[in-house]
Amino acid sequence: MPAEFDFVDWLGRQQPTSPHVAVGVGDDLAVLRWDAGDLLLVGADQVLDGVHFDSAVHPPRLIGRKVMNRNLSDCAAMGCLPAAAVCTAALPKGTGLDYAKQLHLGMRDAADAFDCPIVGGDTASWSPSTGGRLHLSVTILARSAGIEPVLRGGARPGDGIYVTGPLGGSILGRHLTFTPRVREGRVLAKSSRVTAMIDLSDGLSRDLRHICQRSGVGALILGEQVPLHDDVRRLPPDSRSLLEHALHDGEDHELLLTAPAGLDQLADVPLWPVGMITQGPELLLKAGGKTLPLPARGWEHPL
Amino acid sequence: MPAEFDFVDWLGRQQPTSPHVAVGVGDDLAVLRWDAGDLLLVGADQVLDGVHFDSAVHPPRLIGRKVMNRNLSDCAAMGCLPAAAVCTAALPKGTGLDYAKQLHLGMRDAADAFDCPIVGGDTASWSPSTGGRLHLSVTILARSAGIEPVLRGGARPGDGIYVTGPLGGSILGRHLTFTPRVREGRVLAKSSRVTAMIDLSDGLSRDLRHICQRSGVGALILGEQVPLHDDVRRLPPDSRSLLEHALHDGEDHELLLTAPAGLDQLADVPLWPVGMITQGPELLLKAGGKTLPLPARGWEHPL
Repeated sequence: MPAEFDFVDWLGRQQPTSPHVAVGVGDDLAVLRWDAGDLLLVGADQVLDGVHFDSAVHPPRLIGRKVMNRNLSDCAAMGCLPAAAVCTAALPKGTGLDYAKQLHLGMRDAADAFDCPIVGGDTASWSPSTGGRLHLSVTILARSAGIEPVLRGGARPGDGIYVTGPLGGSILGRHLTFTPRVREGRVLAKSSRVTAMIDLSDGLSRDLRHICQRSGVGALILGEQVPLHDDVRRLPPDSRSLLEHALHDGEDHELLLTAPAGLDQLADVPLWPVGMITQGPELLLKAGGKTLPLPARGWEHPL
Repeated sequence: MPAEFDFVDWLGRQQPTSPHVAVGVGDDLAVLRWDAGDLLLVGADQVLDGVHFDSAVHPPRLIGRKVMNRNLSDCAAMGCLPAAAVCTAALPKGTGLDYAKQLHLGMRDAADAFDCPIVGGDTASWSPSTGGRLHLSVTILARSAGIEPVLRGGARPGDGIYVTGPLGGSILGRHLTFTPRVREGRVLAKSSRVTAMIDLSDGLSRDLRHICQRSGVGALILGEQVPLHDDVRRLPPDSRSLLEHALHDGEDHELLLTAPAGLDQLADVPLWPVGMITQGPELLLKAGGKTLPLPARGWEHPL
């Protein structure tokens, strides 16, 4: 049976060269050089079988790609550049070496697009007969590289609220295949006109709440202006309206940002205005001639 | 039912202050300041229910402590100082907020001992009825802080092989309660006399192999010199000898290092000599008057 260190040996031969990596896979820790004055950003995100993907349906290469892109999307939201990643993989026993390699290659598909080397991590296995399911966790390091990272807490009353693309229906497949808005986030941050930014992972109605809470403001979303992704119209009909899908579906991984009102682009990044920041604290939705509280129906994990 | 963001709100109120943390829990990524010229070390390790602990038996505070200490032990092996950690937690639904807090406080028990703030991460849940089990993954960042990190690859023929404490029988409880040798690793690295170092997580017979492979050398272990932990004698008798337990049990989290031969301490750190580095490539064990190959019976995850 193939085992952990067959995989680690293979990983050791996969390493991209990077001027920032002094020691990569194969020691207790990787060793990176960090430029003087460069802020270090760090965060972690994970995908769970049966929650974020279905290993019975989705190929491992797309699963690996998704967990890395979720992390790269967090770099986008700060306007910072991915620098390195580490990963832990918990595999059901019997998964096999080829499957593990496909997971890794999927992560590399995502990370290589932004020159982000995978420098370390850990591989373990558990028994599927007692419930051990596939789990991937990635930690991303990013560098500020000459900008101030854009936080969630800078939105001010009167700011416009924007998204970088149409929303909703990602369950049809986009949640696995999206491109994180690293380039757009960087350009927006460099403009110095963005007051707050977050990536849309849990749905606009929930992610906007994070900006409002951290900024101490409220918001008014104009339902007619929220751009609907074509996927929304392709969804099988259910009890939710098209707008509700766009507001609550989640895993769009577009950027949600606040900036001066009245923009339709910033630098070369097209923007969709969807509302405005208010004194608050309420989050309101104006749609169909009515203004009502915007419920937080996006994704939240029960504990 | 309590949910993810109740926990995140609580986490946001738990944050220790640190001069290195500009932004902690609560944004897309944490923001750290990094001192000029300080090498950045990074790695990740995980614990899986039913493999590294048993949630039916072990309290959550010790489970959290273990996953953090496994990572801190990797800092020890490089001679570097813990700087920050991030964590992902995958919880079976119904675990509850109090249990999640206990996991976090256990991580803090371990991390606070080395002034290592937990600056971010992610919490998710999956259904235990379809196999979702408790999984924790921690990524540790460390700083070189004025030394050259000690790698696995510097062992040379003629070096002595040492451990920092007696080995074996950690399954009786020490695998959950050990203290990572961060202080000792630092002192040893500062001496500039250590040629290679690793922490003993998978058992001496397997971890020594990593040093030999990276260094391109062999080794001779002198069985009579391997220090047996009292726990070995307390184990229920089985087919393994006391020495075999010390060589193969794993999760000791003492340091295994190579340095000039003939030492019994280095700086103020007591050392147990257990053999010597050879031209190799074989790893040999001399015991009971015989010299035979040292089998790699320590822990390895099947894939």
